[in-house]
Amino acid sequence: MTNAHGHDHDHDDPWIGDLLKDSPTNWRKWGPDDEVGSLNYLTPDVVLSAAKAITSGKTFTLQVKMANPDGDPVWPGRSGAVRINVMDEGHFLAGKGVETAGGAHYADDYMTCFLQGSTQYDALGHVWYGDQIWNGYDAKTTIGGLAKASVCPIAEKGVVGRGILLDIARWRGKDVLDSGETFTHEDLLACAEAQGATIEPRDILLIRTGWIGSFYRVPSEEFYADFVEPGLTYSPELVEWFRSMEIPNLVTDTIANEVTVDPVSGCVLPLHNALMRNLGVTLTEIACLEDLAADCADDGQYTFLYTAAPLKVVNGTGAPVNPVVIK
Amino acid sequence: MTNAHGHDHDHDDPWIGDLLKDSPTNWRKWGPDDEVGSLNYLTPDVVLSAAKAITSGKTFTLQVKMANPDGDPVWPGRSGAVRINVMDEGHFLAGKGVETAGGAHYADDYMTCFLQGSTQYDALGHVWYGDQIWNGYDAKTTIGGLAKASVCPIAEKGVVGRGILLDIARWRGKDVLDSGETFTHEDLLACAEAQGATIEPRDILLIRTGWIGSFYRVPSEEFYADFVEPGLTYSPELVEWFRSMEIPNLVTDTIANEVTVDPVSGCVLPLHNALMRNLGVTLTEIACLEDLAADCADDGQYTFLYTAAPLKVVNGTGAPVNPVVIK
Amino acid sequence: MTNAHGHDHDHDDPWIGDLLKDSPTNWRKWGPDDEVGSLNYLTPDVVLSAAKAITSGKTFTLQVKMANPDGDPVWPGRSGAVRINVMDEGHFLAGKGVETAGGAHYADDYMTCFLQGSTQYDALGHVWYGDQIWNGYDAKTTIGGLAKASVCPIAEKGVVGRGILLDIARWRGKDVLDSGETFTHEDLLACAEAQGATIEPRDILLIRTGWIGSFYRVPSEEFYADFVEPGLTYSPELVEWFRSMEIPNLVTDTIANEVTVDPVSGCVLPLHNALMRNLGVTLTEIACLEDLAADCADDGQYTFLYTAAPLKVVNGTGAPVNPVVIK
Amino acid sequence: MTNAHGHDHDHDDPWIGDLLKDSPTNWRKWGPDDEVGSLNYLTPDVVLSAAKAITSGKTFTLQVKMANPDGDPVWPGRSGAVRINVMDEGHFLAGKGVETAGGAHYADDYMTCFLQGSTQYDALGHVWYGDQIWNGYDAKTTIGGLAKASVCPIAEKGVVGRGILLDIARWRGKDVLDSGETFTHEDLLACAEAQGATIEPRDILLIRTGWIGSFYRVPSEEFYADFVEPGLTYSPELVEWFRSMEIPNLVTDTIANEVTVDPVSGCVLPLHNALMRNLGVTLTEIACLEDLAADCADDGQYTFLYTAAPLKVVNGTGAPVNPVVIK
Repeated sequence: MTNAHGHDHDHDDPWIGDLLKDSPTNWRKWGPDDEVGSLNYLTPDVVLSAAKAITSGKTFTLQVKMANPDGDPVWPGRSGAVRINVMDEGHFLAGKGVETAGGAHYADDYMTCFLQGSTQYDALGHVWYGDQIWNGYDAKTTIGGLAKASVCPIAEKGVVGRGILLDIARWRGKDVLDSGETFTHEDLLACAEAQGATIEPRDILLIRTGWIGSFYRVPSEEFYADFVEPGLTYSPELVEWFRSMEIPNLVTDTIANEVTVDPVSGCVLPLHNALMRNLGVTLTEIACLEDLAADCADDGQYTFLYTAAPLKVVNGTGAPVNPVVIK
Repeated sequence: MTNAHGHDHDHDDPWIGDLLKDSPTNWRKWGPDDEVGSLNYLTPDVVLSAAKAITSGKTFTLQVKMANPDGDPVWPGRSGAVRINVMDEGHFLAGKGVETAGGAHYADDYMTCFLQGSTQYDALGHVWYGDQIWNGYDAKTTIGGLAKASVCPIAEKGVVGRGILLDIARWRGKDVLDSGETFTHEDLLACAEAQGATIEPRDILLIRTGWIGSFYRVPSEEFYADFVEPGLTYSPELVEWFRSMEIPNLVTDTIANEVTVDPVSGCVLPLHNALMRNLGVTLTEIACLEDLAADCADDGQYTFLYTAAPLKVVNGTGAPVNPVVIK
Repeated sequence: MTNAHGHDHDHDDPWIGDLLKDSPTNWRKWGPDDEVGSLNYLTPDVVLSAAKAITSGKTFTLQVKMANPDGDPVWPGRSGAVRINVMDEGHFLAGKGVETAGGAHYADDYMTCFLQGSTQYDALGHVWYGDQIWNGYDAKTTIGGLAKASVCPIAEKGVVGRGILLDIARWRGKDVLDSGETFTHEDLLACAEAQGATIEPRDILLIRTGWIGSFYRVPSEEFYADFVEPGLTYSPELVEWFRSMEIPNLVTDTIANEVTVDPVSGCVLPLHNALMRNLGVTLTEIACLEDLAADCADDGQYTFLYTAAPLKVVNGTGAPVNPVVIK
Repeated sequence: MTNAHGHDHDHDDPWIGDLLKDSPTNWRKWGPDDEVGSLNYLTPDVVLSAAKAITSGKTFTLQVKMANPDGDPVWPGRSGAVRINVMDEGHFLAGKGVETAGGAHYADDYMTCFLQGSTQYDALGHVWYGDQIWNGYDAKTTIGGLAKASVCPIAEKGVVGRGILLDIARWRGKDVLDSGETFTHEDLLACAEAQGATIEPRDILLIRTGWIGSFYRVPSEEFYADFVEPGLTYSPELVEWFRSMEIPNLVTDTIANEVTVDPVSGCVLPLHNALMRNLGVTLTEIACLEDLAADCADDGQYTFLYTAAPLKVVNGTGAPVNPVVIK
C-alpha cells in the first residue's frame, strides 16, 4: 500500500521520513558530486594534529577474524565469508601442482563473502529513505551497484584522524551491555570525562559495548537469539551534536552501530539515516575493540592516531577493512 | 620423475633448492612459533621514529580498484573479483525489498575473489620449495588452508613503519620499465640517492616500476601478452643486503614483486623463496603507486609513515589490503 | 533518451516492439498463472506416443562439459563455472581431514557458475520487451529473481517428448555453419525430408549447426572473435509455423538459439521474444549434438525420446541441464 | 595416531577396512580404466526392456528445489545454494541495463553451491578408505579434483533403466521413518511384494523413507537436531544381494542413502564404501519422492522408466541432478 509519502508502509506504522523531517543534512555542503561526506573534515591539518597523539608506538588492528571456520559475526540473513584452497602442497604430492622452472611450490585460495559480512565501512549510499540517498542522489542509482556514493571513494580517500575510545561497557561496569541497552551523546561525554579524555571536534569515535567480544564467548544460537543489539539511540539533540562536532566517522563493536530498534519512535536503525544518509557520517561496524580497550584501561591513554582504508570495491555498498590504531 | 632431492623435476632443469642452498634464513630467529618474520623488526621504537616522517598531513591509499567491471590486474590464471548486488532500490520498486519498521531501504552485495587477486599481502607460507615453508614448518601444513604462517598473524599485527618510495621508472626516465627489465639493490641505493633520500635499516621499501599503472592505459590483451614482469633480480648479494638491512616489507607495483624469470638461473620467482620463505620478508604486490610517486616527485619527500593491515582471513595464503601512506 | 514507446533507445534504431506488434502470442492460453507455456503441449498422450520412438536402447547425453579447466563455451560477458575442492585425500594426508568413526575418507567440492553458463533451459521470463514478460506478467517481477515464469516450474514439470534432430550443418555439407549464416523453417522442413524424417506437431526440435562442436577445435580467441552465431532467423511466417506446429521446445548447439543479429530488422535476438516471450516456446541452448548427430547419420534414425529437466533453481532465469536422448 | 593399517584412528575404534576386509568388489570387472561401475549393467537391452514400463505417459521430476530462500536440505557442514541476479528490469529502470539493437531486456543470474548440496549423484571416487578409491585408483588422484572416477563419466553416460519405488515409510504406516531407524534388503523384498511388484536384476532402486519430505514440514532446527538419518544398514548379506542383483543405482530421499551410523559396527556410512567404492553402485541422494510415491499408491504401478543425468562437472566429486520418471 502506497501512502501519501509515496512510500510503501501501513498508515499506522512510523515512517522514518516523518521522524527525520526536520533533521539537518549536509547535502551539497561539499558540492554536487561529493561521495565521502563528513570525511571531508579530515583535512591535512587534522591529520597532522592527530599524529601528535602517537606517544608509545604501540599498534592495534581492529578487524574481527574473517572466514573463521567457527563462524563470523554477521547481521542475520548474511553469512560469513568462505575461504577455499585452490592449490597447496597436496596438489604437488599428487602430481597436480603447477610446475615452473626452479620447482617452487605455492598455495592459493579463493573467497566468497558478503561485503558487509566482516568489520566494514558502509558506503554513504548503503541506507536511505524516500527517493534519495546521500547528497540527494536518486535512489535508483543504487540498482545493480552504487553508481554514486559507493564505498570506493571512501576507500580512495582513506580515513586518517584522531580516534578516541569511549568504553561504555567498562564505564558501566559490565563485560557487555544488555540486549537493547541504549546510551546517548551525553553518555559519551560523561564516559570520556570519566576516562580523563575530551572529545574534540572532528574526532573519530570508537564506541565499545562489548557486544562483538561476547560473540566469541557464547554459543552462536545464544548470540543470535532474539537479536537486538545495544547502542546509541536517536534523538534530535544527538544528531545536532554529531553535526556541530563535525564527527567524520563512528566506529562501534556492534553489527549495526546503533540500538536495533529506537524505543521511542519504533523505527529500525534511524541513525543510519540521520547520521549517514543526511549528515554524511561514515559508519564502521563489527570492529573488535577488546585488546585496544584493555590497553587503554591499562595506560589511561584513550586517544590515538586512527588509520583505516576499506577495500576499493567498485560500486560497493560497503567493504571489509582492518583499521590500524597507533598510540 | 623424482630426483636426488626428492623433488619432481627434470635433471637438466635448475632447482631452486640448489640455487639457494647457501642462502641465509631467519628461521627460528623469533622462536619456533613465529608467523610474521621480519615484521618483528617493526618494534614500537621503530613506529615512534617512523611517525616523525609525517610533515604535511597528506595521505594516499595504495590499493588498485577491485571488482572493476573493466577488469582487475591479476596473475595469469587468476581472475578479478566479482561483485553482485543482492538488494537495492530495484527490489523495493518491485515490492521485494526487506521491509522494516520505519521503512528504510538499503543496498547489499556479495563478492567472490581470489585472495591474491588485488593489492595484497602474501602469507609467509604462500611459496616454498622442498618440504618446508617459512620457519621450517612442514609444507603439508598448507593443505586445505595454511595452518601455519598464514596471512592472519600478519593481519593481526598490522604493518606500521617508515616507508621509502624508490621510483625506479622515473629515475630511469621511463613511464614504465620494459617487460623483463631488471634492477638490483645497488640500483635501489642509487635511485634513493638521486631522490635525495636514504634507505635506513628496517625501512619498508616501495618500488615503482610503472607496471600496474600501464594496466590502465593499454588493452588487456597487450598487458598480458607474453607476460614477463620487470623487477628486482636474484643475487646472493641482494639477499644479504635485505638480511643485513632488516627490511620488513617489500611493496611493488607489479603482480609478483620481482622479475618473472631470473635471467641467470632460469628459475621462476626465486626471490619469493630467498626473501619470503627464508628471511621472512613480507611481500606486498599489485600496489598502485602512481599518485604517491607524482606527489613525491613534486615535493621531494620520498619517506613517510606507512600503515597497512590485510584482511584477517583465517588460514589465508594472502589477503587484500588498502595501505595508507601519511606524509 | 525515451522515445514515444516509453523505451530507451534512439529514434533511428529499430524497436523490437514495432517489429513484433502483430506477432501472435499464447498469453493466457493456459490460464493467468501459467509459467511453462508451450510445454503444456507435452501431455501424457504425447509422451506415450514419443516412447514409441525408442527402438534400440541407445542413449546420448547432450550437455557440454562444465567447469572445464580449459574453458566452457559461454555468451561473451559471462564466464564458465569454477569448481574447487574443499576436502580430498590431501587433507587426510595432512591430518586435516574430517575424522569419523570407521575412518572413511571423502572428497567434496564447491562451484560458482552463471546459471546460463552451460547447456541450459531459459526461463520463459528470461527475455522481454516493453513492460511485460511471458503471459503478461509485469517486467518488474524479474527484479532480484524471477517471481513469475522462472525456470523452476519448467524444472518441476520436466520435458519429455519426441525429439527430432535437424542436422543443418551435415545437410549443407559443412562441419560448421559460417558466422552469421541463417536458415528458416523451410530449411528445417527440407532438411528433415532429406534425412527421411517428418517434423510432427509438438515435436521437440534439436537443430545442429556444428557451432558448439567447433568451440573444442579452435583457439578460444578465434571462437569469440567478432562473435556472431549462425542460426534461425526471424520472419512472420517462421513464427506462425512454430505456433501452428505447437513446438514446445527448441534445442540448438549455439549459445543463443538464433542468428545473433536479424539481418533484415537489425534487431538482436528477436526470436527470443517472438517465440519465448510471446508463444511460450522453451529454449535450450549450448547443447552438444556431435555424438548424437554422428549416430543419426549412421543409423538413419533422426527421431527419439527426449527427456530433460533443468535444475529446480528457485526464481532462476535459467538453469543448467544434461538432456538424455533414448533411441 | 597411526595404527597397524597405516590409518589414523584410535585402536579402540572400529576401522572400516577391517569391517569390509572380506567384502566383494567389482574392481577391474569393466577394465582398468572404468569410471562408471555398475552403470555398465545398463546396456541397450536393459534400456529397451525398461521402456516397456511406460504405460500412461505420466511424468515426475525428483530433484528438491535448489537455492530456496527458505533453505535447502543439506548434510551438516555444507550450505544450500545461493542464487543472485546480475541483471533484471531494475537495471533497465535505472538506465544500467545492457542495451542492444532492438531494445530487448533480460534477466541473468549467478549461483554458488556445494556440488553435493542438492539432489545429486555421487562420483564413484567420492568416498573411500585406505589408499584406494573405486577400481583401485590411488586415493591421491582425488586431490584438487577427481582425476579418476569423477562424476563426469557418469554424466557422460547418463542413467536410463527400469526404476522401482520401494515406499518403506508407507509400508510401515508412517509419514516418515524415525531418526536412526533401519531396514535391510529383506525389508526391500517384503515391501516390494506388499506393493505387488518384483525387484528384477539391474533395477534402479528408489527407496522412500519420508525423510526429505519432512524437511519441508518441520522447523530447520528440529530437522538437524541430533542429526541421525534412517536408512539401509550394513550386513554382508545385503552387500551380496546388491552384488548378485547387479543393482546399478541406489536412489533415496535421505541425504546420505543409509543409516548415519551402523548400529552393529559403529562405523559411519559403511555402505558408501561397501556399495560404491567396492561394487561401483552409483548413489543418488536427497531425491524428493513424495509426489511419485503418492501416485504409485494411487495407481498401484511402482515400476517405470527412470532417466537421469547429473551435470557434466569436470573432476567433480558429485553433481546436482533432476531425475525424470516416466510411468
